[in-house]
Amino acid sequence: MELKGACIFGQSGGPSSVINASAYGVFRAALESECITKVLGAAHGIKGVLNEQLFDIGQEDAETLSLLLQTPSSALGSCRYKLADPSKDDTDYKKILEVFKKHDVRYFFYNGGNDSMDTCNKISRYMQQVGYECRIMGVPKTIDNDLAGTDHCPGFGSAAKYIATACAEVWRDAHVYDTGTVTIIECMGRNAGWLTAASALAGLNGCAPDLICLPERSFVVDDFIARVGECYKMNGSCVAVVSEGIHDAEGTLISEYASQNLAVDAFGHKQLGGAAAWLTREVKDKIGAKTRAIEFSLLQRCAAHSASATDVEEAYQCGRLAVLAAVSGVSDKMVAMRRIDDIGYKIVYDYVDLSVTANAEHKIPESMLDGDYGVTPEFFDYAMPLILGEPDMKVEDGLPKMAWLKKVLV
Amino acid sequence: MELKGACIFGQSGGPSSVINASAYGVFRAALESECITKVLGAAHGIKGVLNEQLFDIGQEDAETLSLLLQTPSSALGSCRYKLADPSKDDTDYKKILEVFKKHDVRYFFYNGGNDSMDTCNKISRYMQQVGYECRIMGVPKTIDNDLAGTDHCPGFGSAAKYIATACAEVWRDAHVYDTGTVTIIECMGRNAGWLTAASALAGLNGCAPDLICLPERSFVVDDFIARVGECYKMNGSCVAVVSEGIHDAEGTLISEYASQNLAVDAFGHKQLGGAAAWLTREVKDKIGAKTRAIEFSLLQRCAAHSASATDVEEAYQCGRLAVLAAVSGVSDKMVAMRRIDDIGYKIVYDYVDLSVTANAEHKIPESMLDGDYGVTPEFFDYAMPLILGEPDMKVEDGLPKMAWLKKVLV
Repeated sequence: MELKGACIFGQSGGPSSVINASAYGVFRAALESECITKVLGAAHGIKGVLNEQLFDIGQEDAETLSLLLQTPSSALGSCRYKLADPSKDDTDYKKILEVFKKHDVRYFFYNGGNDSMDTCNKISRYMQQVGYECRIMGVPKTIDNDLAGTDHCPGFGSAAKYIATACAEVWRDAHVYDTGTVTIIECMGRNAGWLTAASALAGLNGCAPDLICLPERSFVVDDFIARVGECYKMNGSCVAVVSEGIHDAEGTLISEYASQNLAVDAFGHKQLGGAAAWLTREVKDKIGAKTRAIEFSLLQRCAAHSASATDVEEAYQCGRLAVLAAVSGVSDKMVAMRRIDDIGYKIVYDYVDLSVTANAEHKIPESMLDGDYGVTPEFFDYAMPLILGEPDMKVEDGLPKMAWLKKVLV
Repeated sequence: MELKGACIFGQSGGPSSVINASAYGVFRAALESECITKVLGAAHGIKGVLNEQLFDIGQEDAETLSLLLQTPSSALGSCRYKLADPSKDDTDYKKILEVFKKHDVRYFFYNGGNDSMDTCNKISRYMQQVGYECRIMGVPKTIDNDLAGTDHCPGFGSAAKYIATACAEVWRDAHVYDTGTVTIIECMGRNAGWLTAASALAGLNGCAPDLICLPERSFVVDDFIARVGECYKMNGSCVAVVSEGIHDAEGTLISEYASQNLAVDAFGHKQLGGAAAWLTREVKDKIGAKTRAIEFSLLQRCAAHSASATDVEEAYQCGRLAVLAAVSGVSDKMVAMRRIDDIGYKIVYDYVDLSVTANAEHKIPESMLDGDYGVTPEFFDYAMPLILGEPDMKVEDGLPKMAWLKKVLV
């Protein structure tokens, strides 16, 4: 059962406010483990393995590492790199194997979302095929909260807290004048509307958005404008929150109404954004109201200053438990969280097969959707506990301190 | 010297994170004052006086009032209403006088920026002219920090803290990939670049923007793109922060390059925004880099969750001291702050003539500007103390609590 060797940890996909909290969990547990002989961090995820850009985490000082708990956005660097199907092209896999052998890597921890779990899964199957003994664990991360096999994902709680807080603040701002205004806010979330739905939590503060438009529903522009118009007429103002991924019944994104040539990343995902701006122009034309479009853009995924303490702790535990599980013999799994019901909010950690999570998408269930423009109390019960708690931030010169790793290459 | 009567307090212009802290300062001091017989809050600033929409602040409970310290965005409602020149049209002034007489109003406190101080000044001169005894005090407020006669303005410190924090976070996010990206952030500040300059404070965290473009300088599109290109070539990425008010040598706004029909408010100010979006398209065309535009939009003026404790305290004191001064006989002044040098950051409060501040604009002095795209250490010495301190926020359900006033009309 005991397997001695080095480990590599990599961060992949879009960053989050707490992705480095998971890194800290991995690093601390790995540095303390007697089985793990060297702790390596890959620069820019799997690309750092392929390019042999590996940092010796043992060279970092403890205080800097602990600041990872409050440092947003992939301290090791991230990537959006798609490994080929190994049956068609195994070049990358051979290179990974070579690097693993060279550094006696027996543990590989990969922190990311759906695509990253797919990467883990492919590497794992390849290593089994060639008979190279190593243990591979996925650490969940995505603000989108769309990973299957886990109650929720580290990163979501902090992004949800930021969105709820900012929506409440914008709501107050949008209501100060008596002249009326339509504000349309755009949140991330390509196919799953969790982040956009999180804007509903601003209602806990008395600042509920009037309309919430999720990619789980088809978006009908005329109906939306009619609803905005009704609300504007009744209240003198309207705050709507839309997902970047809203699309019409044919599946055409509203973003594409605005710009027909959206850039595409390595995984074929279109670079979204612009839906709110396009909609405000339509609303202005049709209703004549003063409008404002606000895209939360990168802010929602990097606003560590507004992180949820619950999320930070869970992200840390997911990283730590990936290491403890691997050392004890578990492999080809992603750390997952299960919610124990009926006794308030309590999480137990678990492991799910990489194949369950790879490329699957966890959308908002029907029971949490209320009509075309709202969420049910079940969503509140689900999401509210995830935004609880203020982290105890270390501050310097009025700004939250950040970790700057030495990044000593091996 | 003693003048007994009611007071009216109003909030005007764009909201800020701490405008309600000033309201709390006014309310507490006024409620405790023996000279002030009734404390009234005007709905939507001077419009609430004109429409006789006046709330009885004495009906509010103490706990709700204290939450004003952490509630963003004009709890009484705001306005952008320009009083006519009284020599041409004194209708509004007659109405104000009528309302003052009806409620025995002897004190008027008005919280706002340049335009609001102009409003105060006009009312004050009218009341003197008609011989109605009342004391009128301006309470400074503007995130833009462009009020003359004071070292800085309540609202600026919190907005600056938010901008510096968010810029540092976005900087980290913009540097996670090795594929390179140009990020252009847009901050508010029509003619004065203080907010945009505050992005330089992110450098205290190791995340300094590469280029800072202020309205104090003429903006040359080709030169900017060349500088972005150089930076992108050298570092593989570039983070630039531009003011919404950047303009070419002829004075044409870059926002107007994007949209030639900008909406105009009651004071003739154009509704800005869109400069960053336009510039990213230019950069993409000319350099071919992946680009992203981020407008901080309303977030920078309402992000009370990231307020500066220094700013909250100063905003509170400005409100409180306006009342104490008026009660002791001062009138036609705005509360101002003077920085006492050579002994670290220390502020003394003072009063300046309304005529000094009305419609004047305090821009960044030349000594704080470094070339076309940066600021000098003098700017850091000036701005850093203003973002210090984390307010002790009351939180409920994971969100900062907000004050909801009863708003009982008199």
